[in-house]
Amino acid sequence: MKIIEPIILKGTREFGPEEMAKRNLVMEKIKNIFARFGYDPIETPILNPAETILGKYGEEGDRLTYSFEDNGKKRLALPYDLTVPFARYFAANWQTLPLPFKRYQIQRVWRAEKPQKGRLREFYQCDIDIIGTESLIAEAEIARVIATVFEELNFKNFKIKINSRRLMNDILNSFGITENEMEVMRIIDKLAKIGQEAVQVELTKLGVENPVELLDLIQQNSIEKLENFDTSEVENFLEYCKNLGISEEVIEFTPSLARGLDYYTGIIFEVVSKDNPELGSLCGGGRYDNLCGLFSKEPFSGVGVAFGFERLMIAMEERGEFENLTLNSQILVTIFDEKTIENSLKIYELLTTAGLNTEIYFEPEKLKKQFKYADRKKIPFVIVQGPDEKAQNQVTVKSLQSGKQKTISIDQLITFFNGYEK
Amino acid sequence: MKIIEPIILKGTREFGPEEMAKRNLVMEKIKNIFARFGYDPIETPILNPAETILGKYGEEGDRLTYSFEDNGKKRLALPYDLTVPFARYFAANWQTLPLPFKRYQIQRVWRAEKPQKGRLREFYQCDIDIIGTESLIAEAEIARVIATVFEELNFKNFKIKINSRRLMNDILNSFGITENEMEVMRIIDKLAKIGQEAVQVELTKLGVENPVELLDLIQQNSIEKLENFDTSEVENFLEYCKNLGISEEVIEFTPSLARGLDYYTGIIFEVVSKDNPELGSLCGGGRYDNLCGLFSKEPFSGVGVAFGFERLMIAMEERGEFENLTLNSQILVTIFDEKTIENSLKIYELLTTAGLNTEIYFEPEKLKKQFKYADRKKIPFVIVQGPDEKAQNQVTVKSLQSGKQKTISIDQLITFFNGYEK
Repeated sequence: MKIIEPIILKGTREFGPEEMAKRNLVMEKIKNIFARFGYDPIETPILNPAETILGKYGEEGDRLTYSFEDNGKKRLALPYDLTVPFARYFAANWQTLPLPFKRYQIQRVWRAEKPQKGRLREFYQCDIDIIGTESLIAEAEIARVIATVFEELNFKNFKIKINSRRLMNDILNSFGITENEMEVMRIIDKLAKIGQEAVQVELTKLGVENPVELLDLIQQNSIEKLENFDTSEVENFLEYCKNLGISEEVIEFTPSLARGLDYYTGIIFEVVSKDNPELGSLCGGGRYDNLCGLFSKEPFSGVGVAFGFERLMIAMEERGEFENLTLNSQILVTIFDEKTIENSLKIYELLTTAGLNTEIYFEPEKLKKQFKYADRKKIPFVIVQGPDEKAQNQVTVKSLQSGKQKTISIDQLITFFNGYEK
Repeated sequence: MKIIEPIILKGTREFGPEEMAKRNLVMEKIKNIFARFGYDPIETPILNPAETILGKYGEEGDRLTYSFEDNGKKRLALPYDLTVPFARYFAANWQTLPLPFKRYQIQRVWRAEKPQKGRLREFYQCDIDIIGTESLIAEAEIARVIATVFEELNFKNFKIKINSRRLMNDILNSFGITENEMEVMRIIDKLAKIGQEAVQVELTKLGVENPVELLDLIQQNSIEKLENFDTSEVENFLEYCKNLGISEEVIEFTPSLARGLDYYTGIIFEVVSKDNPELGSLCGGGRYDNLCGLFSKEPFSGVGVAFGFERLMIAMEERGEFENLTLNSQILVTIFDEKTIENSLKIYELLTTAGLNTEIYFEPEKLKKQFKYADRKKIPFVIVQGPDEKAQNQVTVKSLQSGKQKTISIDQLITFFNGYEK
C-alpha cells in the first residue's frame, strides 16, 4: 500500500504536548485576566456563508480570505479575523445581550498567504471588545486590561502608545488635508517602517504642502505642543488611566500613531515591547463608531483591541519564560513484575482518586526502562513496589530530580504527596 | 448601503457567554480528568493537504469531507474526525515522543451533511488515545478514564458496554462466517436500531446459515455461555478494571457489540446512558493495531475512545446541570455621578488588583439602570459610593440575591469579599 507522507500544510502548525503546555499556560493567564475585568467568552463558527466574511477589507482582504463552494454550490468562507465575526454576532444577538456587552474571543483565523517564512496561514487571534457605550471609561478599562496582561506575562519594557483619531483629523485639517485623511494616515503609519524621508516624499506626492512641519508637530509626543487643538479627549482618557493605577511609564501619548484600518473614530492603541522591537505591534485597536454597520441599521459605538497571541508566545519563548515547564503528570507508578500488576493498579487507582496526576507504566519491563519513560516526560516522582515492599504494605517513592528515595506505608502515600504540593 | 443578513450557516453554531460558561465548565472537568490520568493535549491543523484527510473512510467519508482548491490550485481539506489527524501526527512525530504516547485532543471537525435537524456540519470531538503498547492495562486505564468522566459529570445510569473483536471473530468463524466478518458485524451493530428480525433477514441475505442461534448466543451477555471460545482477553481486562476500582455495575460485557469501523482489532467500548437512551452512544472506541498504516510503515498498536461532547452537553442540559451557573463577574462597581467617577475607578482598581472578578459601569446613569445591568448579568454584588459614603471613605455593598446591604470602610472591602469566597 502507498504510504501518504504525514506532512502539514506550509503556514499551518501542529502543537505537541510541550508546545501545548506553553500555549495553555499563556492562554489561561490571559483568560483569567479578561474574566477578572468582566469579559465573557463567545465563540463563532469557522464555516460561514461567504457574504458574511467577504467584502469587509476590500480586494486585498478578499484575496487573502479562504472561500470555496460546498457540495450544494453555496459559497463558504473561513474567518479572516475575529472583528467581522464579532460584528455579525453582535448584530444578530444584541437585543438579547446585556448592554454594554463585553466579550473576549480566542480562535483561529486564516489568511490565504503564499507560503513564506514568518507568514502563517492559520493562527490564533485574541480579541476583547466593549460595545454599546461611548464612555471614555471603556477606553481606560481596555488600557488597564492591556497593562495587566503585559505585566502578568512578565513583559518589563512595554509601552502602550495611544492617540486619538479625532485629534489627528483636526491636525490634518489644520494642514489643509480635508479629503484624503485616511490615505495620509496610512502613510504616516509607515514612519517606523520606511523612515522620515520616504514618508515626506509620499506625503508630498499626495499633495500635502508642509509635510516637514506636520511630521515635526506629531512626533514630539507632547500634549503641550498641541495647545491649538482640542486635546480634552486624550487628557480625560489619561486621567482615567491614572485613576486606574496605570503607570505613566507605560502609557505613551504618540500623536503620530495612525493605525491603518479606517473604522477607528476615537482613541487608538498600539503596544510595543522595547525588548522585542523586531516583533512590531503586540496588541492594537481602538474606538469605532459603527462596527456592525454592514450587518445592522443600529449604530453601536465600541472599543476593542486584538492581542497578537503568536507574537506574545515568540517574545516569551525568547525570554526563557517556559524553561522549567512540566507536563501534566506528577507521578509514575511502575510495574515490578507480572505478579504485582494488581498492586500497581490499586496504587494507581488510589492516587488518581485522590486527584493526583498519575500514570501507570503498561508493562512489567526493566525498571530502568520505566524510569527512562518518567524522565522523558519530566515526571518528578516514581513509585516502585517490589515483593519486599508489598509484604510490608509499603512503596518506595523516588524523586527523579534529587535522586532521593523513601519507603513509606501505603496509608501515608496521599499525605506524602499532598505535603509536597503545599 | 445594503445590510448583510447576520446569519450563520445551518449546521454550525455560535456560542454566547451563557452557552460558553456551560461548555467551558464541562471541558475543564474533562481536561482535568485526562490530565489526572497522564494524558497531555495536542492540537493539529484545521487546513490540511487533502491527501492526508481523504480516502480514509471510503466514498461516503470523502463525500462528507469538506475539501476545496486554494488559490495555488492545491487541494485542501478540513478534518472529518480527530483519529486521522492524530494518526498523521503520530506517524510524523513518534520518534521524538515518549512511548507509549498518551494524548487528548478536543477540536472541531466538519461533515458536509445536508442541513437537517440534529445533523451538525461543525462540532467538537474529544478523543483520548494510548499508542505504542499492546498491554491490556491500557484498555483498563481507558475504561477507568471513561468511568471517571461519566461519574464526575454526574451521570447516574451509564453503562460501559465492552466486547472483543477477536472474540467476535472467533464466534463468527464458528458459525462458518470466515470471509465477510466485517459486513456481518455492521449488520449486528444495527440490532438496537432496526431490531432482531430485520437483522436476521439481512444476515440470511448475506448467507449466514444460523442467524437465530448466532444472535441468541451473543445476546446473552454471559461469559459462561461462551465456554467454547477463548475469553481470556475479556476476563483479564475485566480483572484489571476491578483492580482499578471500576464498579461491576458500570461495565457490561456485551458480545453483540460490534462497532462499525473496520480498524478495531481487540477490546471495543461503547457508553450509553439509560437516562438518555435517545442520544445513543455517548462514547466509543477500542483497540487498533495499525492506525498509522496509511502514513507510516511502522506498525503501532493502540487503544482510544472518542467522547461525544455535544451529546454529553445535551444530556447534562436536560438534567438541569447548568441551572445555577453564573458568568465571570462577581461585583459591579457603580458610578454615582460625574463627580465620583475618579473614586469608582479607584475602587474598581482596588478590587481587580486583588484578583476579584469585577466590572465597572461606564456611565453615571440612574442607579436603577446600573443595578439592572448587574441583574441581567447575574452579578451577585453591587458597590455604591455616594457623597455620604465618600466623605466617610466607605462604600455600600449590596447583595442582589438577598437584597441585603452593608456599609463598610474601603479598607475592609477586600477582606469582606475574600471572606465570602471561603
